[in-house]
Amino acid sequence: MTTPDHPSVHPAWLPDAATAFLHGRTVLVAGDGPLAETVRGEARRAGATLVDGDADLVLRDTGAVPGGEGFVVAHRDGRLDVAADDDAALLHAWFHVVRSGTTDAAGHPDARHEPAHALRMLDHWDNVDVHPVMGQVERGYSGGSIFYADGHVREDLSRVEQYARLLAATGVNRVAINNVNVHAREARLLTDGLPDVARVAAAFRPWGIRVHLSVSFASPIVLGGLPTSDPLDPGVRAWWADAVARVYAAIPDFGGFVVKADSEGQPGPFAYGRDHADGANLLARALAPHGGTVHWRAFVYNHTQDWRDRSTDRARAAYDHFAPLDGRFDENVVVQVKHGPMDFQTREPVSPVLAAMPRTRLAVELQVTQEYTGQQRHACYLGPWWSEILRFRPWGPVEGDDGSPTVSDVVGGAGPGASPQVAAARGGGIAAVSNVGDDAFWTGHPLAQANLYAFGRLAWDPTLDPTAVLDEWVALTFASPSSASADRTVDPDVRAGVHAVLDDSWRTYEAYTAPLGVGFMVNPGHHYGPSVDGYEYSPWGTYHFADRDGIGVDRTRATGTGYIGQYPAPWRDVYESLDTCPDELLLFFHHVPYGHVLHDGTTVVQHVYDTHFAGVERVEEYVRTWQGLRGAVDDAVFERVTERLAEQLRSAREWRDQVCTYFLRASGVADAHGRTIY
Amino acid sequence: MTTPDHPSVHPAWLPDAATAFLHGRTVLVAGDGPLAETVRGEARRAGATLVDGDADLVLRDTGAVPGGEGFVVAHRDGRLDVAADDDAALLHAWFHVVRSGTTDAAGHPDARHEPAHALRMLDHWDNVDVHPVMGQVERGYSGGSIFYADGHVREDLSRVEQYARLLAATGVNRVAINNVNVHAREARLLTDGLPDVARVAAAFRPWGIRVHLSVSFASPIVLGGLPTSDPLDPGVRAWWADAVARVYAAIPDFGGFVVKADSEGQPGPFAYGRDHADGANLLARALAPHGGTVHWRAFVYNHTQDWRDRSTDRARAAYDHFAPLDGRFDENVVVQVKHGPMDFQTREPVSPVLAAMPRTRLAVELQVTQEYTGQQRHACYLGPWWSEILRFRPWGPVEGDDGSPTVSDVVGGAGPGASPQVAAARGGGIAAVSNVGDDAFWTGHPLAQANLYAFGRLAWDPTLDPTAVLDEWVALTFASPSSASADRTVDPDVRAGVHAVLDDSWRTYEAYTAPLGVGFMVNPGHHYGPSVDGYEYSPWGTYHFADRDGIGVDRTRATGTGYIGQYPAPWRDVYESLDTCPDELLLFFHHVPYGHVLHDGTTVVQHVYDTHFAGVERVEEYVRTWQGLRGAVDDAVFERVTERLAEQLRSAREWRDQVCTYFLRASGVADAHGRTIY
Repeated sequence: MTTPDHPSVHPAWLPDAATAFLHGRTVLVAGDGPLAETVRGEARRAGATLVDGDADLVLRDTGAVPGGEGFVVAHRDGRLDVAADDDAALLHAWFHVVRSGTTDAAGHPDARHEPAHALRMLDHWDNVDVHPVMGQVERGYSGGSIFYADGHVREDLSRVEQYARLLAATGVNRVAINNVNVHAREARLLTDGLPDVARVAAAFRPWGIRVHLSVSFASPIVLGGLPTSDPLDPGVRAWWADAVARVYAAIPDFGGFVVKADSEGQPGPFAYGRDHADGANLLARALAPHGGTVHWRAFVYNHTQDWRDRSTDRARAAYDHFAPLDGRFDENVVVQVKHGPMDFQTREPVSPVLAAMPRTRLAVELQVTQEYTGQQRHACYLGPWWSEILRFRPWGPVEGDDGSPTVSDVVGGAGPGASPQVAAARGGGIAAVSNVGDDAFWTGHPLAQANLYAFGRLAWDPTLDPTAVLDEWVALTFASPSSASADRTVDPDVRAGVHAVLDDSWRTYEAYTAPLGVGFMVNPGHHYGPSVDGYEYSPWGTYHFADRDGIGVDRTRATGTGYIGQYPAPWRDVYESLDTCPDELLLFFHHVPYGHVLHDGTTVVQHVYDTHFAGVERVEEYVRTWQGLRGAVDDAVFERVTERLAEQLRSAREWRDQVCTYFLRASGVADAHGRTIY
Repeated sequence: MTTPDHPSVHPAWLPDAATAFLHGRTVLVAGDGPLAETVRGEARRAGATLVDGDADLVLRDTGAVPGGEGFVVAHRDGRLDVAADDDAALLHAWFHVVRSGTTDAAGHPDARHEPAHALRMLDHWDNVDVHPVMGQVERGYSGGSIFYADGHVREDLSRVEQYARLLAATGVNRVAINNVNVHAREARLLTDGLPDVARVAAAFRPWGIRVHLSVSFASPIVLGGLPTSDPLDPGVRAWWADAVARVYAAIPDFGGFVVKADSEGQPGPFAYGRDHADGANLLARALAPHGGTVHWRAFVYNHTQDWRDRSTDRARAAYDHFAPLDGRFDENVVVQVKHGPMDFQTREPVSPVLAAMPRTRLAVELQVTQEYTGQQRHACYLGPWWSEILRFRPWGPVEGDDGSPTVSDVVGGAGPGASPQVAAARGGGIAAVSNVGDDAFWTGHPLAQANLYAFGRLAWDPTLDPTAVLDEWVALTFASPSSASADRTVDPDVRAGVHAVLDDSWRTYEAYTAPLGVGFMVNPGHHYGPSVDGYEYSPWGTYHFADRDGIGVDRTRATGTGYIGQYPAPWRDVYESLDTCPDELLLFFHHVPYGHVLHDGTTVVQHVYDTHFAGVERVEEYVRTWQGLRGAVDDAVFERVTERLAEQLRSAREWRDQVCTYFLRASGVADAHGRTIY
């Protein structure tokens, strides 16, 4: 179970067994584009026979919709005949067939497939140099960077090529290759480093993936020696225009920039009395002549807040900064909004910014790397969480589906009131922080590969059932080696076992860590493991206000910070009322006594006890389930997962005991079930 | 106010003005030893005239008590005539005169002066390499190491020579030059690094100071390639014998080893089923033929404790490990005991180990570097704290002085039941962790120089009044430049101002940080700033057990961990009873409700509020006082202290607000004075 170029590297969801059903099949790939050649290479790799005439599988680049990326699956004489919009679509169609595991007509109903989002991007928080605290990959839990080693872009990019192939199989089409916190060395990728960036772009190109760079807003000063990076300064504009022209001279299909400005210490337009629209448009106008895009992050807040100051609410910050700027961003600006108002917590409400900027191309930003969800030491399949977010309806209804717009619609440019420009550009799409490093399993925890896979698939089609997506991943990753030239199979015990561990693992993680929407009960800095008061007296704006009587943040309009007022109806009312506020977000929106009774009849404090004990029990069950798979999965995978599950169980017990003890000490309320709390 | 060799380096307590009163005086230095030459050099440096006959000041090495270090001050014809035991004593006598600031007979009553302790040692926790987390000096707050730079012992050791001179003026006679946590690079000082260590020793030698090394117990493995470091293994013994012989060949007056074994991850004899006596004696027997000493630290405890485990009490650990070994240590072993049972907290009881090992040479270990006392960003004069410790009477009386033995007596070999060997060796003396680095002011905070000075003076004579010692330091450090050839003077405003800031600064620090003996309410890792629960759920054994009802650790014999039973009477009874336990240690020994009434009539929680507000007010007063000294002290000193006081005030307010808020939230008890708590 290794890839040929790197014998020690796990093949993820493209082991040879995944394509063995294509062995000996005849395949016709009709098309002249460069990606058609990639598809032919894939067919050869699968052991298929490329033919010019009749074939088991026909893939045709019709050229009908350049940039469309969609394809129509049909049948002719009982055989699959796929008509692709363009050569990128040809590649998507190929992997569509691979995912299906069959060339049988019954497995392929006639249908058109196309991506819901034009921009499906992974952001790497990789540094060229190793950071003394963060390591090489900020919030990376999978070893070093696949792009950089020893202070340079790697000479050998074969692993990047394998990564590109894996991403192509999920539908990702953009990759930003360096950290949004742009340190001095990394800033130079934009200038001195261009030949190396061009090599990376060349590794991604055959897989239909365009490369982006994170840039420092202070580049004109840091790299150009200018006295300012004021976005309205003509010299600054000229510097960016020149810099971008040089980028495109080296990389004609360069994607654009990702920018974290005026955020957590990064430079930005505020220093010059300018706003984020001024800043973003500066870069956008340099990129526009070349077809590039600027992803401008909305993650802006006061990270030196005084914890004593209850009038400031970090949750409000992105909306307060960005909503007033709606309509002022250029067409090639995407404002990239974290899915929640805080920072990738296990549970947050959806950011109200996503409902507040119809005249702006918005992207929703997810986090595949498990910063707050177990850091790839815990099995935590995030598909259900992302699915909830993407299907969320900012304008209601609260339950059910009346066809009203979802978050996915909004970031697809189809939200209510979307300007013609936003609609024409199909919004800003979906971005996420990658969880990949140079670890042999790509993601540290082998089961965390499922998150990377699911991200690509949900970015392509957010209406997919996340459990079905997981099942795809299982079928590919754990494909039985014996399935050559027949429909692909997977050991049913493995399928059931992996589902048993992963299906509900995000809710399990939530249960033993931070239920009811309370966040940031983690150790400061590295964010692993429990510390109930870890961020309670910090400058980061992340508080729970627990005392002897109760807990939670009052963000109501009536008596709190007013954050709830940033939501349109019905949510501004649903969240405002204790009667209707969903339990899982209760403490995010309200400060309540420990004795407050939840909708299921338990009190808040008893819920804390119950979920923490139940969460640990579920992890114990995961351990048992996985042990049953010994011999049924690759030994190396088995051992790595076994080791991670042991740590997950240890950590889950630590969470349970610290959190329960803290709240027992605070509340004085004994557990109704008499379990041991310390 | 700089030293000649390093123009930017502050002269500390030996500015030229400090010795200006000797300018033009005639001095006779009679003696042949190498240190006599040092004294003559000092006399010349002070502008005195060295003569062979009649002189204003006569210093004679009588050679009467080799190694005695004492001297007799007498008068002949109205002039000072000092008879010194040996040439080290000659140097002590010289600095005695310098400290006095006068050659007038009235300033020098006839008396014999001699050190209370034969071993007066400073331990440097310096690493050759810069540690990624700790920096170069572990728990160092004064820049890098004065010994090492760029991965090597410095070529230019002139700063070490200046440091040696400063220490000689306080009476220190031993220095360990590397961290007790011995990393791989530093371990090699014992072998490859010997020529460099010899250079360092040569820099200290003219000042009567012998150099020691911290060594790794695993040296036979790490450096010698042996398969074991088992203390009973003949090969290991031979390896140490050879290694030590090489050390003494290079450094004939080498002092010996400092060892942290089986402590916080350092290797030790436990791995071989041996005990600390086996370990210490291994090294002692290698050192004995050469006259060397092993300082074996008693700081041994379980640092991977489960916080849920209430049966383990870290405070008990040193006694439980070491007391049973009394009588088993060789004569040249000093067991070095931290002054308190925990770890250099702002307030702890005196370690019961100091009363439990009469047949062992014991040293008490203090911490000059302000790890837990403000890290040299806070003005915190520790003289009063050390004075309390050294004067503490482990066998009573609780108050007053009936001549019963003190801690100082014990570590001087004069405790009750001291074995003849211990008495003959005069115990193990006093050691402390240095606060010095390559900072221009030596100690980061200029006022922290007072701690270094006071350590030396109190190690020489623990009966000195710490405020008087501070006054000596002020008189030297802030000596008026105009005092040439007259008795030395100091600006009375400066004298009063520095006293106002420092005299009570330790109690002030205690007030706004952690009153009533509760410890470790600090941020984990770096230990700066408040975090009430920072160590509450940690493996370090450092808990306060605060809940909604009360706080403190029950260490009683009756209902607690039994730690109090490690004390002899009367303390085992005084501490056991809530009626007699001193308030300042209440929470160290007892878990009490917040409403528990202290001896002054306030409740525990009100005391927390009151002391924290009062502590901040005192710091505000320090700031005002210091501002009044602008122009009266050197500008660079003024500015540095001003900047540090601003940080102290900010930090003190943060302590006040976090601690008060935490306990208000926990207790629900409002402040009786209605002050703002968040």
